[in-house]
Amino acid sequence: MSYKSDIEIAREANKKPIQEIGEKLGIPSDHLLPYGHDKAKVSQDFINSVKGNKNGKLVLVTAINPTPAGEGKTTTTVGLGDGLNRIGKKAAVCIREASLGPCFGMKGGAAGGGYAQVVPMEEMNLHFTGDFHAITTAHNLLSAMIDNHIYWGNELGIDERRVVWRRVLDMNDRALRDIVTSLGGVANGFPRQTGFDITVASEVMAILCLSTDLEDLEHRLGNIIVAYTRDKQPITCRDIKADGAMTVLLKDAMQPNLVQTLENNPAFVHGGPFANIAHGCNSVMATTTALKLADYVVTEAGFGADLGAEKFMNIKCRKAGLAPSVVVVVATVRAMKMNGGVAKADLGAENVEAVKKGCPNLGRHIENVKSFGVPVVVAINHFVTDTDAEVQAVKDYVAEQGSEAILCQHWAKGSEGTEELATRVAAIAEAGQANFAPLYPDDMPLLQKVETIAKRIYRADEVLADQKIRNQLKEWEDAGYGNLPVCMAKTQYSFTTDPRRRGAPTGHSVPVREVRLSAGAGFVVVICGEIMTMPGLPSKPAAEAIKLNADGDIEGLF
Amino acid sequence: MSYKSDIEIAREANKKPIQEIGEKLGIPSDHLLPYGHDKAKVSQDFINSVKGNKNGKLVLVTAINPTPAGEGKTTTTVGLGDGLNRIGKKAAVCIREASLGPCFGMKGGAAGGGYAQVVPMEEMNLHFTGDFHAITTAHNLLSAMIDNHIYWGNELGIDERRVVWRRVLDMNDRALRDIVTSLGGVANGFPRQTGFDITVASEVMAILCLSTDLEDLEHRLGNIIVAYTRDKQPITCRDIKADGAMTVLLKDAMQPNLVQTLENNPAFVHGGPFANIAHGCNSVMATTTALKLADYVVTEAGFGADLGAEKFMNIKCRKAGLAPSVVVVVATVRAMKMNGGVAKADLGAENVEAVKKGCPNLGRHIENVKSFGVPVVVAINHFVTDTDAEVQAVKDYVAEQGSEAILCQHWAKGSEGTEELATRVAAIAEAGQANFAPLYPDDMPLLQKVETIAKRIYRADEVLADQKIRNQLKEWEDAGYGNLPVCMAKTQYSFTTDPRRRGAPTGHSVPVREVRLSAGAGFVVVICGEIMTMPGLPSKPAAEAIKLNADGDIEGLF
Repeated sequence: MSYKSDIEIAREANKKPIQEIGEKLGIPSDHLLPYGHDKAKVSQDFINSVKGNKNGKLVLVTAINPTPAGEGKTTTTVGLGDGLNRIGKKAAVCIREASLGPCFGMKGGAAGGGYAQVVPMEEMNLHFTGDFHAITTAHNLLSAMIDNHIYWGNELGIDERRVVWRRVLDMNDRALRDIVTSLGGVANGFPRQTGFDITVASEVMAILCLSTDLEDLEHRLGNIIVAYTRDKQPITCRDIKADGAMTVLLKDAMQPNLVQTLENNPAFVHGGPFANIAHGCNSVMATTTALKLADYVVTEAGFGADLGAEKFMNIKCRKAGLAPSVVVVVATVRAMKMNGGVAKADLGAENVEAVKKGCPNLGRHIENVKSFGVPVVVAINHFVTDTDAEVQAVKDYVAEQGSEAILCQHWAKGSEGTEELATRVAAIAEAGQANFAPLYPDDMPLLQKVETIAKRIYRADEVLADQKIRNQLKEWEDAGYGNLPVCMAKTQYSFTTDPRRRGAPTGHSVPVREVRLSAGAGFVVVICGEIMTMPGLPSKPAAEAIKLNADGDIEGLF
Repeated sequence: MSYKSDIEIAREANKKPIQEIGEKLGIPSDHLLPYGHDKAKVSQDFINSVKGNKNGKLVLVTAINPTPAGEGKTTTTVGLGDGLNRIGKKAAVCIREASLGPCFGMKGGAAGGGYAQVVPMEEMNLHFTGDFHAITTAHNLLSAMIDNHIYWGNELGIDERRVVWRRVLDMNDRALRDIVTSLGGVANGFPRQTGFDITVASEVMAILCLSTDLEDLEHRLGNIIVAYTRDKQPITCRDIKADGAMTVLLKDAMQPNLVQTLENNPAFVHGGPFANIAHGCNSVMATTTALKLADYVVTEAGFGADLGAEKFMNIKCRKAGLAPSVVVVVATVRAMKMNGGVAKADLGAENVEAVKKGCPNLGRHIENVKSFGVPVVVAINHFVTDTDAEVQAVKDYVAEQGSEAILCQHWAKGSEGTEELATRVAAIAEAGQANFAPLYPDDMPLLQKVETIAKRIYRADEVLADQKIRNQLKEWEDAGYGNLPVCMAKTQYSFTTDPRRRGAPTGHSVPVREVRLSAGAGFVVVICGEIMTMPGLPSKPAAEAIKLNADGDIEGLF
């Protein structure tokens, strides 16, 4: 039996004009700013006009710790959105935009997979509606204005050794990680060591994704700490007077992008912050707008539930006043097997014991999500090699945890394959069982926030942080930043900081290597491992094979 | 008497949906890819479908050497386009896109002025349709792939000291002019000195603007020389295998952008190569497409006629097989006065003698343009302070040269003010007087091409080029590049290389400081002065005052 590839299915999509998709949500075509015929931004005026609407119900799709087998979180998000529409609910999905740079290293990715995809796939992997280019430009304008300020006399007294604002490009370019700028003499400024990150790692990206409106955006941009003086006083973006111009550059990028699923249902694809040094969710603007227009909004958060759902709850929901009605945890039989110790090459053979052995990873995530006061449903994303006995083993395990696991076949069948999941999700949401609360209060000391997450989510015994880190956190508390949430940066492959420890380990320690203040985004990043903020290209970059063929189609991008 | 500012007039524009503008040129709305409601790209399929159409007539608008008084070349281009439409001709204008980066240094510019403008003005000064961002990305992908090739073993044997391909940003950022990359150890590559240019200075920009279709684009990109081996053999973009992926990144950017004038006539705004290290004209794609759709296409070339028109004729027309039917040389009474020795502060007072004294600069340009076999009309772009006697002095002078000068009042009156010019231009074009030929044949040796331009256009006695430069040109001739045109880079303020020498000087020398091969764009850049390829920001950047006001309008950008 042979299957069509994601790109083949995407290219066969029977897309409708984006105005028809907007109509489903009651967006008049005047208020849809088209980018071609199948993408549009929703106008700020329209967004303002629906602020009084009642909110729909919010559904978060999260997952077990990712394994090389793949779990299909975005695919399930899209499939569930289509499923809800299929059973007569007005539903929209909200997912993140893809980063362009990495597509030229490894192959670009679909938004979803099989018959649960969002289109147009190629544009979403390339320039899309230009949001990331706008973020790159706004970020680098601030960088240029900092060096320019120093060049023209440095009235603010910036310590050139303490400029913390780097530059960004949406490109995998390791040569730019660590550079010396302003060489060449007087006309080019004062040489100093700095570097470039990839655009998705920019604090501007995190800010765009957390801002509730343009005013909030400008305020947060102004709060960015870009440098320190010799006596360690912070210099902000507002001091540099870049916040207004950056807001102008980001004005259009703040408007959520509307596209469609293969089944012509509305999908907002907007924002794409790193899931480690930022919070890894699509934009607050898109989510809150979708909630005003749809009865159900299905969204996802980066990586597994220990990182993604935790930050979704403790950062995005806290800051934007959102509360999920139900959480779907995606699991696959294959991933359970890998958690149960099976190597990737052996995943094809039935192994019920391994499935059972791997289930505690799923169980831990279910328990964690419930601790936020939100009901959980497990979606088993079906692979063709899964056997009935394996699927049943997962279902039985989940039932023992007091939840329900539902087999989903959206990859092969589209919304037909998620009808049961959609029905169950709607029933739970409408029953109003959720009683959402973040894990910790705003006024808890920063280190205690880290400890709360480490103990209650990661099930670690302790957090290891040396005096320097403790002092830094204390300084920020004294400076008025103690009320911020913490943004954990750790491997996504394990509850621990060791990517090889699968399953549901306990008794480990969480060492904090570094802390960073994102005063504009509004969180303290707590780094518990290696964080790469500028990737490199592989020895055979995908770019070498990317081209337009004789028909004008793109080859090699997927 | 008080006048409205350009931005006030632009904001009051009674814009029509871009589909209606496309209709005027017979572009079906299916083939217009909208970017919002007032901008669109013309689809590649449609462009291919009209290749068999008869060409309209091409009108070039050029000018005297620019003075601080301003000459209004774009304003006249737009005004003439509207004027031709007014007298019943189907006309389109073709102008360049603005660079975003510089708008944050000095204020952004209108496309035209007064009642002869192209809109939407704000978008055209910001991200517009993303073309420049696409060029930035394509350029920097090649940069990343070069360093990546060296990193992974350097199979091609690139000499790290001889990588000539830099990086670009659309930003005024002097700190990036001269940098050292790949610091930080093994994982980040081999440290080397390089830098960033502004995006409009990218050879990719010049290539995009000269390519006749996507195939030609890919071929030219492949030809870019990015580095040399230790034994000085060139390494091309094709060797790095970046040409296909760059073409994919530039696919949409190659499609011309359609917008409208204040009078709702079609305007193509596409491409914006530097007018010194490149050829300074809008794209060949836009011009050739417009010629298939309109009876008259009015376009312009950067700087004065000595640089802009010369390169338009010898590079763009030669390469794209274009031939202008008539050339309009724009002059102002004020600029004549400045050429006649009047200081800017004194331009308000009538001074017929100074006008007469300055006219030989105009006369020289008229003579030069005629030497390409094309008839000339002079447009006197009227300023409110011009007196009748001053205007008459210019008219009399031009008549003595065997041409005609026509007073134009498009700035104040729109197309009503260019009716006479349009009528005259149409009459000349329809009379078929032009017999266009470039100034030199392809097979003339490179240095002789430079001498031809220097003597026949600049009226210099000699070209000064040392042995190193002569050897370099000889090497390129031996390598098969001898048939390329030369792209002169010199001050725009004078026929000489000294910006202070106004009027119509003779007897000077043209020193060649440097030559550069743009093998992809297809020309040899001949640098006769300081060339700044990465501007800096001023001490009070415009960005400091740019912001969104309470109504959501942009303040400070203009």
